[in-house]
Amino acid sequence: MAKLKWGMIGGGEGSQIGPAHRLGALADGRFEFVAGALDHRPDVGREYAQRLGLAADRAYGDWQEMLAGEKDRSDRINLVTVATPNSTHFEITKAFLEAGFNVLCEKPMTMTVEEGEEIQKIAAKSDAICAVNYCYSAYPMVRQARDMVRLGEIGKVRLVVTNFSHGHHGDATDADNPRVRWRYDPAMAGVSGQFADCGIHALHMASFIVGDEVETLSADFASTIPSRELEDDAMVNFRMSGGTVGRLWTSSVAIGRQHGFEIQIFGETGGLRWASEQPNQLIYTPVGGRTQIIEKGEGGLHPDAQRLSRVAIAHPEGFPLAVANIYCDLADAIAGETRDGLPTAEAGLRSMAAVHAAVRSAKENGAWVDARPPMFR
Amino acid sequence: MAKLKWGMIGGGEGSQIGPAHRLGALADGRFEFVAGALDHRPDVGREYAQRLGLAADRAYGDWQEMLAGEKDRSDRINLVTVATPNSTHFEITKAFLEAGFNVLCEKPMTMTVEEGEEIQKIAAKSDAICAVNYCYSAYPMVRQARDMVRLGEIGKVRLVVTNFSHGHHGDATDADNPRVRWRYDPAMAGVSGQFADCGIHALHMASFIVGDEVETLSADFASTIPSRELEDDAMVNFRMSGGTVGRLWTSSVAIGRQHGFEIQIFGETGGLRWASEQPNQLIYTPVGGRTQIIEKGEGGLHPDAQRLSRVAIAHPEGFPLAVANIYCDLADAIAGETRDGLPTAEAGLRSMAAVHAAVRSAKENGAWVDARPPMFR
Amino acid sequence: MAKLKWGMIGGGEGSQIGPAHRLGALADGRFEFVAGALDHRPDVGREYAQRLGLAADRAYGDWQEMLAGEKDRSDRINLVTVATPNSTHFEITKAFLEAGFNVLCEKPMTMTVEEGEEIQKIAAKSDAICAVNYCYSAYPMVRQARDMVRLGEIGKVRLVVTNFSHGHHGDATDADNPRVRWRYDPAMAGVSGQFADCGIHALHMASFIVGDEVETLSADFASTIPSRELEDDAMVNFRMSGGTVGRLWTSSVAIGRQHGFEIQIFGETGGLRWASEQPNQLIYTPVGGRTQIIEKGEGGLHPDAQRLSRVAIAHPEGFPLAVANIYCDLADAIAGETRDGLPTAEAGLRSMAAVHAAVRSAKENGAWVDARPPMFR
Amino acid sequence: MAKLKWGMIGGGEGSQIGPAHRLGALADGRFEFVAGALDHRPDVGREYAQRLGLAADRAYGDWQEMLAGEKDRSDRINLVTVATPNSTHFEITKAFLEAGFNVLCEKPMTMTVEEGEEIQKIAAKSDAICAVNYCYSAYPMVRQARDMVRLGEIGKVRLVVTNFSHGHHGDATDADNPRVRWRYDPAMAGVSGQFADCGIHALHMASFIVGDEVETLSADFASTIPSRELEDDAMVNFRMSGGTVGRLWTSSVAIGRQHGFEIQIFGETGGLRWASEQPNQLIYTPVGGRTQIIEKGEGGLHPDAQRLSRVAIAHPEGFPLAVANIYCDLADAIAGETRDGLPTAEAGLRSMAAVHAAVRSAKENGAWVDARPPMFR
Repeated sequence: MAKLKWGMIGGGEGSQIGPAHRLGALADGRFEFVAGALDHRPDVGREYAQRLGLAADRAYGDWQEMLAGEKDRSDRINLVTVATPNSTHFEITKAFLEAGFNVLCEKPMTMTVEEGEEIQKIAAKSDAICAVNYCYSAYPMVRQARDMVRLGEIGKVRLVVTNFSHGHHGDATDADNPRVRWRYDPAMAGVSGQFADCGIHALHMASFIVGDEVETLSADFASTIPSRELEDDAMVNFRMSGGTVGRLWTSSVAIGRQHGFEIQIFGETGGLRWASEQPNQLIYTPVGGRTQIIEKGEGGLHPDAQRLSRVAIAHPEGFPLAVANIYCDLADAIAGETRDGLPTAEAGLRSMAAVHAAVRSAKENGAWVDARPPMFR
Repeated sequence: MAKLKWGMIGGGEGSQIGPAHRLGALADGRFEFVAGALDHRPDVGREYAQRLGLAADRAYGDWQEMLAGEKDRSDRINLVTVATPNSTHFEITKAFLEAGFNVLCEKPMTMTVEEGEEIQKIAAKSDAICAVNYCYSAYPMVRQARDMVRLGEIGKVRLVVTNFSHGHHGDATDADNPRVRWRYDPAMAGVSGQFADCGIHALHMASFIVGDEVETLSADFASTIPSRELEDDAMVNFRMSGGTVGRLWTSSVAIGRQHGFEIQIFGETGGLRWASEQPNQLIYTPVGGRTQIIEKGEGGLHPDAQRLSRVAIAHPEGFPLAVANIYCDLADAIAGETRDGLPTAEAGLRSMAAVHAAVRSAKENGAWVDARPPMFR
Repeated sequence: MAKLKWGMIGGGEGSQIGPAHRLGALADGRFEFVAGALDHRPDVGREYAQRLGLAADRAYGDWQEMLAGEKDRSDRINLVTVATPNSTHFEITKAFLEAGFNVLCEKPMTMTVEEGEEIQKIAAKSDAICAVNYCYSAYPMVRQARDMVRLGEIGKVRLVVTNFSHGHHGDATDADNPRVRWRYDPAMAGVSGQFADCGIHALHMASFIVGDEVETLSADFASTIPSRELEDDAMVNFRMSGGTVGRLWTSSVAIGRQHGFEIQIFGETGGLRWASEQPNQLIYTPVGGRTQIIEKGEGGLHPDAQRLSRVAIAHPEGFPLAVANIYCDLADAIAGETRDGLPTAEAGLRSMAAVHAAVRSAKENGAWVDARPPMFR
Repeated sequence: MAKLKWGMIGGGEGSQIGPAHRLGALADGRFEFVAGALDHRPDVGREYAQRLGLAADRAYGDWQEMLAGEKDRSDRINLVTVATPNSTHFEITKAFLEAGFNVLCEKPMTMTVEEGEEIQKIAAKSDAICAVNYCYSAYPMVRQARDMVRLGEIGKVRLVVTNFSHGHHGDATDADNPRVRWRYDPAMAGVSGQFADCGIHALHMASFIVGDEVETLSADFASTIPSRELEDDAMVNFRMSGGTVGRLWTSSVAIGRQHGFEIQIFGETGGLRWASEQPNQLIYTPVGGRTQIIEKGEGGLHPDAQRLSRVAIAHPEGFPLAVANIYCDLADAIAGETRDGLPTAEAGLRSMAAVHAAVRSAKENGAWVDARPPMFR
């Protein structure tokens, strides 16, 4: 059980995302951190990488140097994580993928649908894994929900209702704070603010659990703080390939909501509810019956939920271990196991297509538009 | 402190609504039940009324007889409650109002906007009170929320998000049950199913708490059980006169939701959350601060919330006493007090206009439409 | 269905208990309020009674006058409620009971065990009903719990764990406030403070649900605010006649607890949990199975729970209607129905014996003592 | 920032505790796993250790071999974790401590008070760290509670009420299952069952947060499943050195409780509540004020809570990262930082003294006994 070799691009000192990925990759002892280009300032990144224990020759100054340095090594990395600013995900992911590396890309995978289709085409032809970090989908109880749906335990899904809302950008007096402002500035954030940032996790999860794709959508965007060019609140109605009706609300001005991501799935014979702030429970109601609490770690869970639990029932596992679950799936997939829960380039592409579709619908007063990437229509 | 005299039309033996109104009217000892036309079968109604203690000459066979019998009595009723099938509300309310009686009408006040405008015009010219039983708005903590908004305690309201959902019509095998089916049949229910039945409470409350009217809306209706002609699930986005963005979801196929009515109000300086299943708490978060739990009965509540609480903090008061609060407001209003919390004919009219607007929007793929009654445009 | 005639002693203007009993008695239309001695100041009481609509000749100045006035009337009251200061309960209850009136006495029924045994003996020989207002036991979901235990649905009960705690006497700077202070002063409160005031409800409910009596107990009392002579916090361990182990905590200095009364019952094949602040749900876990939420108003509840629910599932019913349920049971019992849920003189006596036993145990450093009234040993 | 070298004794393949410690030690990249004696079967342990990536010469057959192998290496381990069966903790901890190794011992540190005093004496004279894995105390919000108490934010603590209960041993038909039975068998578990197993975490936390020691206690033990020699349910009342009153309930037959560990701390000016199943919130009520929800990751937390949080507000961190926090504290302490939150040998000793005191009190019908180790009286 030799450890897999892992490298990271981005996630420099002081970032939140660097420690989160390192914890995720290292928590279960299946990866070893051996290479990195951690900072946009080459020297700073090299120095920090060595402080984290990387060998000097694998403490790279930028991703190009890292690609060049790794690609011909016999002990080259088995997986690279791309955790750089959003606008650079495409070129880095593409380059490593083309060189045959397995890649875990932070979301969004790309900024445009065209770029997304390009990655998807490369991934489809390659043996390399291209995964996107929709980590909420790796919570054990989300996997349980997905398998319950897949096995027909709530019947055909009629309706999925989800929201991802917080209020941390609700203070207008703080709206010019650079850490907040960029998210609503098209020059930096792209075509969408809150929907692309948080809402897209909820849209991904709807597809992930229901098992069908989003086909059409209608969006209502609002900039409730008027100085914002991009939306800070959005409602998206959608229809899925199997006919499921979808409703998604996302907000960053919902003062009092901390970081609430909830999803409810209503089928012909039952309903499910899961919330990211109490991630270890799944609430299940059979039609005509009583509401039941399904606990992470209880007996009789479906195998994927069991596999991704580490400690006993009622010992909560949280967000960092959901990230770690993505790495578990990656380690298994690299070892040749089928891990169909792993979010792929296709998921990244479909998300980007949905973002662009929602922006267009919102501009057209909520007109229903096709949410699929052109290549999948 | 002589008791006010009260009569009821509808609410016969075996109905849920009869006992609820009698409890509401009698709970605080301010009304005395003296007259009724309780059943569409005259003899049955007369007999039941007498069993409930009414004098034989005020146990009427139908509403026309009751109107004739009451209108010239010196001890005529001070208030009549109309709790008959929906399609009859208009004519009964109109007739009693024109005869100068104070009326509490069950919702919906009318079936069409035109009828609603007619009631509104009569009410506007009359000294009689015309109230509509939007009883959720009479919970003490809803009144507290309304006064907090009114006093600027959460700043200008940016966003209101509400839902009213249950799953009790989610069993397709029970869809032909007559007690369920009529709600989705236009011949009996009118133009809208779930939105008119439950959603309208949420839309009313949004206006009630925010203090502004719904101006435009866009609706997405779905009949998730295909045999239903009317919607069993709806999403309505709206904009209010003061610019507030609104989002309302309602469903009757949300298996696992019991009868969940929740509302969240997000302003510039704070957020509020209230849910009908825990009605004695109001959750408040000041911007940048911690979430606080405001308890019914705590010290320092605003006067309307204090006035409508009967027992001490942490002694829950529930739905029947919210109905009783409507009767308290009516008793006060009859006594000449200003009770601006009492939902009026205007509220009934605006609701009906919104229902018809939503139906039209849903038919036109979510087009934004004017939600106001013509007379208020 | 003529209404029963009801009178009240105590519950004068400005009291909390007066309106609570009037609402409880009148809510369901089965009693009519016809007689009262409402205030210790005769004129004040008479005037207030008339303002509440009582006839002048039944607006009495004191309880003796009321007893004399009522006892020979042909239309004498069917029930009298005793809601006077605690120290007077015994003599009033005794007098009315001996005159053949049905009595609902506020708790505590008496101040001593001897008085309690006297009432119990009178009640045992009489046809009149003597009930004590342990109103929490009349919540529908408490009755459901009791019937589940009775029918063996959780097996033999091993353990009952309950607490009744609040923090409203936790402010030492307010300890001299007369409304607080008397509760910890033996001259006014008797031998026990918080245990007799709140804890006794929890002890009663343990017996009520389990169906066995408290036989022995061991108590630990504390006056956490040192100026208090009586306890403001108590822990009582007990054993029941069927062998059930009991644990009861009560406090008035638990700052942050509003008025939390919770009870958990653990049997051989299942566990139950109920809390007074969410009284419309009963939490049930079968051994080896998932936790289920039983909702007031759901299909299939046991008959007593169904009978005492007024409105549909997820429409909460609160404390005032639990009091009303006591009056429903009384109306039924007066009509000759067997209502074995009604707390009787025996319950009042056993409570008083337990209070005195706990005081003795606490003084003897937690020695285990017999908690039963001498007449039941 | 070279990694610290870490070894482990026990935690072999298939154990729960092995992965939990490895995750805890490795999550933050501060330790590297280099040595182990993982199984009581030497060959099995050596083979598994190598599969986990240990060098062959540090994959030891037993702890004696490991001690011999490590003690003279220049790169010897900086920390050893002892996660063997309870009865062996004492001798292993003692041996490594005497050889100058830093030790993290699983609880209980010893089986007797005498052994505990011996460890304490060795630790007191040594520069080596001896820590005991009371990992619940390392949750960020527990540290926040402790610092709030320490800084006087709830005033002098009057009362602490805690429980640690589950129902996983509540099935009598499963009581002979070897995985359950040993816990109630004195030959294997020692003098106490559920109190020593779970209750002791709660007792430790009471001291940890309040900052005072348990001085006296009175216990009531029950074997609710009669075949059990040791208790499966216990109530312990206690008094602390500063006068705080304590109440602790623990149970393993509380069917429906999953693994509920709750603690409430009531002071002169406020109350706090924390629960292990929602570990990222701390509930705070100032006297006379509203209940507030303090969130892990919010601005303005005390430094220890901030230091031990990894991801942003509302991203839950769970049990495995509480264990990781113990390792963070150890890494810091090894580096010379003062980490007074780290549970020490003294905590292990005091726990053992309390267990023995409770057993004695329970045998003596709840007599109050000294709970302190003789050396600290």
